[in-house]
Amino acid sequence: MKRVKVSNNVIRRLPRYLRKLDELKASGVGRISSFNLGQQLGLTPSQIRQDFSCFGEFGQQGYGYNVKYLYEEIAKILGLHKQHNLILIGAGHLGQALANYVNFERRGFVLKGIFDIDTAIHGQKIRGIEIRPMEEIESFMRDHAIDIAVLTIPKAEAVKIADELVSFGIKAIWNFAHVDLDVPEDTVVENVHLSESLMRLSYNLANSSVTD
Amino acid sequence: MKRVKVSNNVIRRLPRYLRKLDELKASGVGRISSFNLGQQLGLTPSQIRQDFSCFGEFGQQGYGYNVKYLYEEIAKILGLHKQHNLILIGAGHLGQALANYVNFERRGFVLKGIFDIDTAIHGQKIRGIEIRPMEEIESFMRDHAIDIAVLTIPKAEAVKIADELVSFGIKAIWNFAHVDLDVPEDTVVENVHLSESLMRLSYNLANSSVTD
Repeated sequence: MKRVKVSNNVIRRLPRYLRKLDELKASGVGRISSFNLGQQLGLTPSQIRQDFSCFGEFGQQGYGYNVKYLYEEIAKILGLHKQHNLILIGAGHLGQALANYVNFERRGFVLKGIFDIDTAIHGQKIRGIEIRPMEEIESFMRDHAIDIAVLTIPKAEAVKIADELVSFGIKAIWNFAHVDLDVPEDTVVENVHLSESLMRLSYNLANSSVTD
Repeated sequence: MKRVKVSNNVIRRLPRYLRKLDELKASGVGRISSFNLGQQLGLTPSQIRQDFSCFGEFGQQGYGYNVKYLYEEIAKILGLHKQHNLILIGAGHLGQALANYVNFERRGFVLKGIFDIDTAIHGQKIRGIEIRPMEEIESFMRDHAIDIAVLTIPKAEAVKIADELVSFGIKAIWNFAHVDLDVPEDTVVENVHLSESLMRLSYNLANSSVTD
């Protein structure tokens, strides 16, 4: 497959394409033109063709895209054809919410273990998955071929735990702690900073009421 | 204040500046150069100066920025000098996690009411805030000057509820439902699509292991 350097904006749109194609598949649509797909996503047809051209050719000029084929190709580009094994670190409210979210598994993200510093909750289960002591992370990662760690712990702890995870060989961290992690370049970090999202909302609210 | 059209990338960086300045303030730093600030954020000095120039002048050439002043100005730009009143719709796991997150209040985002479709949990409280029936949203919004609704409900319900919220006069929706909301242009929507974030992580994981 032809691969050029793909911009963050394209990467950011790929999951949206996938979601839309999933909906189209579910409603029985077999083919779609870049024009129609664009309309449904608020993008121009040329934008869509340009995005897809980063990865090769998915459609034939004038015939549109085969929805099922395009869905599968984008899923592959996103690495969703493989199973990912996850551990969750921090069984507080947010950790529990994520552990209970079954839809991630539909996409191949399988939660294998939960870890927390609080001895009082060790042995308890969330959706059948046991909460374990932090000391067991290293051996658990080895035994269960863990590639992704979900960090839902306070920011004060997150940097230290991330360092440990890296030394244990973690490949990717889904970071909900409100801090920038300083990890080696080959460790993938995807941040979800909820308070930053709320601030962007606040910014847009403050500026939408300005008439200009 | 001079205002030019501000790009999404700049808006995206503002909360990061704020967080860093908050840390600098807390550790007693009074002034910082764009060079040092850039180093700590992985940005070039000229990038930083360019970002700030969208909003006016915050520093004096050669003297750097006054940390406290810059913090306050950015907080103002983000609309954080005003209190925002929130309602939360959907008291499932994620809703509960957000309702329990006290740090939002530090930034002026005050949760006033929680609503859920499940009659069995009406009257229960999360952090002292009562869970109420959906039918009370309209009057509650009026009585408590609500400007932001947090949507933590399944995607099937989200579109309909968003329409209702708009008709009740909501100004902004913080949307955790995995669906694009179709609201009027003057309603602000900030999406947090967790599964899209996880897919970007998966993409980067798939592509980081490629040696190129």
